[in-house]
Amino acid sequence: MVNHHPAPIKGITLGATSAGIRKPGRKDLLVIRLDDDVKVAGVFTTNQFRAAPVILAEKFLKDKNPIKALIVNTGFANAGTGDVGMQNALSVCEALGNLISAPFESVLPFSTGVIMEHIPVDRILAGLPVCLDVQRPDSWGDAASAIMTTDLVEKIASTSAQIGGQQVSITGIAKGSGMIKPNMATMLSFVATDANISQDALNNILKTVTDRTFNCISVDGDTSTNDSFVLMASGKAGNLEITDESSPGYDDFLRAVTSVCEDLAKQIVRDGEGATKFIEILVDQAEDEIEAKKVAFAIAHSPLVKTAFFASDPNLGRIISAIGASGIGGLDVKKVTIKMGDLIVASNAGPAPGYSEQRAREIMSSRDIKLHISLGRGTVSSRIWTCDLSYDYVKINAEYRS
Amino acid sequence: MVNHHPAPIKGITLGATSAGIRKPGRKDLLVIRLDDDVKVAGVFTTNQFRAAPVILAEKFLKDKNPIKALIVNTGFANAGTGDVGMQNALSVCEALGNLISAPFESVLPFSTGVIMEHIPVDRILAGLPVCLDVQRPDSWGDAASAIMTTDLVEKIASTSAQIGGQQVSITGIAKGSGMIKPNMATMLSFVATDANISQDALNNILKTVTDRTFNCISVDGDTSTNDSFVLMASGKAGNLEITDESSPGYDDFLRAVTSVCEDLAKQIVRDGEGATKFIEILVDQAEDEIEAKKVAFAIAHSPLVKTAFFASDPNLGRIISAIGASGIGGLDVKKVTIKMGDLIVASNAGPAPGYSEQRAREIMSSRDIKLHISLGRGTVSSRIWTCDLSYDYVKINAEYRS
Repeated sequence: MVNHHPAPIKGITLGATSAGIRKPGRKDLLVIRLDDDVKVAGVFTTNQFRAAPVILAEKFLKDKNPIKALIVNTGFANAGTGDVGMQNALSVCEALGNLISAPFESVLPFSTGVIMEHIPVDRILAGLPVCLDVQRPDSWGDAASAIMTTDLVEKIASTSAQIGGQQVSITGIAKGSGMIKPNMATMLSFVATDANISQDALNNILKTVTDRTFNCISVDGDTSTNDSFVLMASGKAGNLEITDESSPGYDDFLRAVTSVCEDLAKQIVRDGEGATKFIEILVDQAEDEIEAKKVAFAIAHSPLVKTAFFASDPNLGRIISAIGASGIGGLDVKKVTIKMGDLIVASNAGPAPGYSEQRAREIMSSRDIKLHISLGRGTVSSRIWTCDLSYDYVKINAEYRS
Repeated sequence: MVNHHPAPIKGITLGATSAGIRKPGRKDLLVIRLDDDVKVAGVFTTNQFRAAPVILAEKFLKDKNPIKALIVNTGFANAGTGDVGMQNALSVCEALGNLISAPFESVLPFSTGVIMEHIPVDRILAGLPVCLDVQRPDSWGDAASAIMTTDLVEKIASTSAQIGGQQVSITGIAKGSGMIKPNMATMLSFVATDANISQDALNNILKTVTDRTFNCISVDGDTSTNDSFVLMASGKAGNLEITDESSPGYDDFLRAVTSVCEDLAKQIVRDGEGATKFIEILVDQAEDEIEAKKVAFAIAHSPLVKTAFFASDPNLGRIISAIGASGIGGLDVKKVTIKMGDLIVASNAGPAPGYSEQRAREIMSSRDIKLHISLGRGTVSSRIWTCDLSYDYVKINAEYRS
């Protein structure tokens, strides 16, 4: 069972402060400290304009540096900032490294906020000692709050599992509300566990979980320059080490991490910019995963479908149009079935017998809506989560920097 | 020079009426009649859920039936309507064929409006005699008005060219405002000329012009079920027949048709649902056309970029992010240059030296904005046209059927 009361994770502490990075009076700087031998795995955006901190964090992990701390600032993304941005990110790592007696390569940097403007290095450096002073193992709530940008709510999830007779805890936080169509990871998510697990197994779990959770959400189809998801394992739970898929407890642990990340991913969609509804799209009877995802995301990214859901208007021909334009070849449209909640909407390339517009309107009026597309050409299925498109999405994004 | 005063085209007449198809009191039914031997070429949507009239019109043209009339209704798209929809479209063709003593295969049907609801065949049949009674060669304005749905303005363009010493006229109309990301043609456009041209040459010109004009626009990234573009040539101008690319006048004629269609395509974007700004996106220094278009449409479809333009907010990192996420591989981001109007915005993966946010805001405040992306990796360029995303887009689409 996932809950939203973060369990502390032995070996990991957190501390946040208001450094006045872009706006005064809000928490905007977070340091996460890791005990020796905490294993870290990370996955980062596929956007080719990757932010400077993303490039550095990926490199430090790839070079197998022992990681001692993560530093996260909001306000500015440090993306599209050229050589100056890279130097700024390095300066921050160096400064934190000096304060905790670690080389700069042991500090993973993360930034989120406005793109193509420089981070105020001085204000960040001034905030670092404060973040270190307030380090505590139970500051996950503060941490979740410190990484918010246009987010309206903190995103936290926690669970535990029995692995080899030992209780293992998993706690994570995430942020993200707009520019959400992760393709490797969400905007920012940090998940920690005290499980004892090998680096290879941790890497595998990171990849599997990412594909099943953060890569299955979309708010607006925009893949950010800064998406990062980091999984940390302190090993302090004392369970027999999980070394690979055949280890006892691997599946249980995978399931537990997936449940935390799925919960965080759904929280991001529910808090999508301007979102009023949460929509699960299940596409089955596809030939392969790729086409199932294509159809699901074509629906999720159609502004016409999204505005119809906002209005609870069963203008459901827009779903048909989105499927037809999704780019999958040779679709036999007569075999496609569309179901919304318990109502069959379309079959045989037309409205389904017994379709009721009144009932469709009722289903669309609820805050949680399930859409189920059967393609009638294979056995593969895929499921994603998205939200509607409201006036407030335009408002938030037309006024974001103002 | 393209103008918006439609020149009549010898051999072609038009008549429209208010048939009360979906809402009373607005023109919603159009018949275009063609003299014997008017040549017709058409291109249709690639959406796999194609409307019944699209399937029929394409088949009638492919079977080389002599085309004697076009029938267009608004209100309902007759898409996603299964076998009943196909029967309905056939009934309309048959009825009009009977009235003009032509087989049903000589009538091309077109529909536009709400998807997945049936057309009211009785009301359409009742309107046909009225449309025939009011046939005139100079009713292009009435015709443009009769095919509008969420369009706010009629879309008409006309020009003339000297072909082999003879003056040739070209006049066209179009409709479309939302669900606009044509992929073969726009929502609906009918263009006629009195030029004497062979069927093969007409087909070639149709294809070239489509790629250069209607396939270069996007309002919301949604490719409709009903997109159709039809080019008609009556041959009455008396010029020496254009038979292929080497015919004298081919290039001039292609240029003239392109200018009419480009003008219509731009009118569609300017009248895009909720649009307040017209944005031209030129991508050059690409390796090939495909990647140039990918980048251009990635920018055009980003809700974040579109809302920033709506707000005249130079939050231009969003453009960088859209380019980076456009799916082209191995991009050297340091070679990418972004220019808006006369202002260099970004270079070397960061803000350009001398970039002025004040100047950027001024440029974004105008109604016509040019965005120029140089990828720094090839010699191919592509240009598309799009609009911004405003509150009114959400309003129009949340309330479209209400």
